[in-house]
Amino acid sequence: MLGNVSDYLSSHLAEIEAASERIRPYVRWTPALATDLDSRLVLKPECLQVTGSFKVRGAFNAILRLRDRKPHTRGVIAVSSGNHAQAVALAARTNGLPAVILIPADSNPAKIAATRALGAEVITEGVTGENREALLKQTSEERGFDVIHPFDDWDIIHGQGTAAQELLHDRPDVRTIVAPVGGGGLISGAVLAAKARDAGIRVFGVEPELASDAAASLHSKQRQSLGTPPNTIADGVRTPAIGQRSFEVLVEHALLDDAVTVSEAEIEAAVLIAWERLKLALEPTGALSLAAYLTGKLGPVAEPVGLILSGGNFDRALVARILSQAS
Amino acid sequence: MLGNVSDYLSSHLAEIEAASERIRPYVRWTPALATDLDSRLVLKPECLQVTGSFKVRGAFNAILRLRDRKPHTRGVIAVSSGNHAQAVALAARTNGLPAVILIPADSNPAKIAATRALGAEVITEGVTGENREALLKQTSEERGFDVIHPFDDWDIIHGQGTAAQELLHDRPDVRTIVAPVGGGGLISGAVLAAKARDAGIRVFGVEPELASDAAASLHSKQRQSLGTPPNTIADGVRTPAIGQRSFEVLVEHALLDDAVTVSEAEIEAAVLIAWERLKLALEPTGALSLAAYLTGKLGPVAEPVGLILSGGNFDRALVARILSQAS
Repeated sequence: MLGNVSDYLSSHLAEIEAASERIRPYVRWTPALATDLDSRLVLKPECLQVTGSFKVRGAFNAILRLRDRKPHTRGVIAVSSGNHAQAVALAARTNGLPAVILIPADSNPAKIAATRALGAEVITEGVTGENREALLKQTSEERGFDVIHPFDDWDIIHGQGTAAQELLHDRPDVRTIVAPVGGGGLISGAVLAAKARDAGIRVFGVEPELASDAAASLHSKQRQSLGTPPNTIADGVRTPAIGQRSFEVLVEHALLDDAVTVSEAEIEAAVLIAWERLKLALEPTGALSLAAYLTGKLGPVAEPVGLILSGGNFDRALVARILSQAS
Repeated sequence: MLGNVSDYLSSHLAEIEAASERIRPYVRWTPALATDLDSRLVLKPECLQVTGSFKVRGAFNAILRLRDRKPHTRGVIAVSSGNHAQAVALAARTNGLPAVILIPADSNPAKIAATRALGAEVITEGVTGENREALLKQTSEERGFDVIHPFDDWDIIHGQGTAAQELLHDRPDVRTIVAPVGGGGLISGAVLAAKARDAGIRVFGVEPELASDAAASLHSKQRQSLGTPPNTIADGVRTPAIGQRSFEVLVEHALLDDAVTVSEAEIEAAVLIAWERLKLALEPTGALSLAAYLTGKLGPVAEPVGLILSGGNFDRALVARILSQAS
C-alpha cells in the first residue's frame, strides 16, 4: 500500500510548493527570527500570521483548491472553537463564499466574536463537544456546503507545510524542526516539507502530557485516541487523535523523528520565557515547541533548531495569571 | 551657522549608511511587519533587536568608531538605568573593551543583573539621579575611559538612524514615521534618514504628557528641560531634555513635523493592544508610537505609517497589572 518514500515525498513537496504560490497573496511570509535567548534557535513566529495563527495557510489552500475543483460551491462549513474558525471565516470571505462555523456554546466568547467579525455565520446553540461532528454532517447536507476539515485533509496539510517550507527557504542551514501536534496538520506538513528537502533534517512533534495521543500512536504504531478531550491550557491541541492522513505520514511512513510531551507547568514557563525573552506574545499552544527545547526533552539535537511558534491568540486572564505568579 | 539643508541631510545620510555597514555583523536587521490591527501600519519591532531595544545600534556604532579613532582606548563608561546600559556592555565586550556602567542604586535589579551578565562593571553605590553626571566625569577621568553618551553624540544618532533606514529600505512606500522621544537620538536619526531620502516623508515624535520637553522645545523653539525626572511608566524616555544635537536637527533645522504627547492611560492601553493584537511584547516606551497613532493625535497622516516600536524590556509586574485590569 505504501509506495516508494522518495516518490511520496516528491509529490507532496510539489503540492506544498503549489500551495505556497496559491496562498501567497493572502497570508504573510513570517520572518525567521534570531533571538538572544539562544543562538542555536531560529523562530518561525506564526503569532504574527494573519488571524494570529498558522491556520490561515491551510484554510486558504483548501478553499482556493475547492473553488478550482468546484467553481459553483455554495459555501463552506467547519467545526472549531479556535484558530481554524477564524481562518476559515477569513478565507471564505476573501473568496466571496458564505461560511458557517459550528462552535460549542461554552467556548470563549472573544473567539466567537472574532469569527463573526470576519463575516461567518456562527452556530453555537445546541453544539457540544460530543455532537458537533454529527451536527456538522447534518448542517452541511442541509445547506449543501462543503466541509473544511481542520487537519485531516491533504489541502490543509500542504497549506500548513508552507510554514516549514518558508523557514527552510530563509534558513537552509536549519537541521532540526520542532512543531506542536494536535490533529497533526502542521507537523505533517512540516515533516513532508523538511524530509523531501533533506532526509537528514530531524523533525519533532510536541504535545502536552495531558494530550499525548500522537506520542502513543507513534510508539504503539496504532492510531490512539484520548477518551475525553484533555483539559490542557494548550487549547489548540485538545484534539483527541491525529488524522488518518497524519498517521500515514508520521507513523506508517515513519517520517517523524519523535513525539515528546511537556507538562502544564513547563508550558506555562515557556509562555513566560517567550514573552520576556523572545518578546513574542504566544498562546500556550504556540509555546509548546519552545517548552520541549528548553526542557531538554528533545535530547541532543543538530543545530540550528527551528521552532514553529504556532499562534498568539492567548487568553488575557491566563497570561495575567502566569505573569503575576512569576512576579 | 546652519548650512544648506540639502548638504546637511546628505552628509548625515552618508554617515547613517556607513553606520549601517559598520554595525551589520553585530545587530539584527529587524523585519518590517504588517499587522491585522490596521492595514495602514508597518511595524519596526526593535523589541526583537539584540538586547531587546534599538540602543545597540548606536552603542555599536559609537564604540566601533571610537576604536577606529583611538585604537588604544582603555575602556568605555556610561550612565544608564536602562537599555543603553546593556547595549554599551555588549558592544564593549564584543570589542574586547572593559566597560563601567553607573546605575543609580534604586534602579531595577533585573536590569542591573542583565548589565553585569554582559560583562560590565556596574557601579551603583552612591549613584543618584542628581550626582551621576558628576560621578561619570570623575570616574572616566580616574580610569581614563571614554564616555559613551546615551543620545547627544553624532555616532549614536547615526547608529539609531539605521532603524528608520532599514524600514525605508524594506518598505520604500512608507510616507509617515513615528518614534518615541527621550533624549532624541532615535527620533533625530529617523528624521535624518527619512528627510534625506524624501523631504515629503513626515516624521513625528511621541512623548508622555508627563515628559513633554521635546514638544515644549519644538513649540517654543528653545531647548526646554523638565525640573525633575518625570514619573512616567515609559521609563525609556524619562530624560529631562533632548540633546544639543537633537535640538539642532529637530528644532533649528525644523526637520521634525511635530511632537505629540500621550497620557499614561493611553500608553497602558497601547501596551495591551500591542500584546493582544500585534502579538509583540513591548515595554511602555516601545508602545508610544502606537499610542499616538491609535489616539488619532497625529492627525490625518499619509500612509503607510511606519511605527518604530523601540523596545521590549518590560517589567513583569507592570504588565501583569495591565493585563489583569483589562480582564
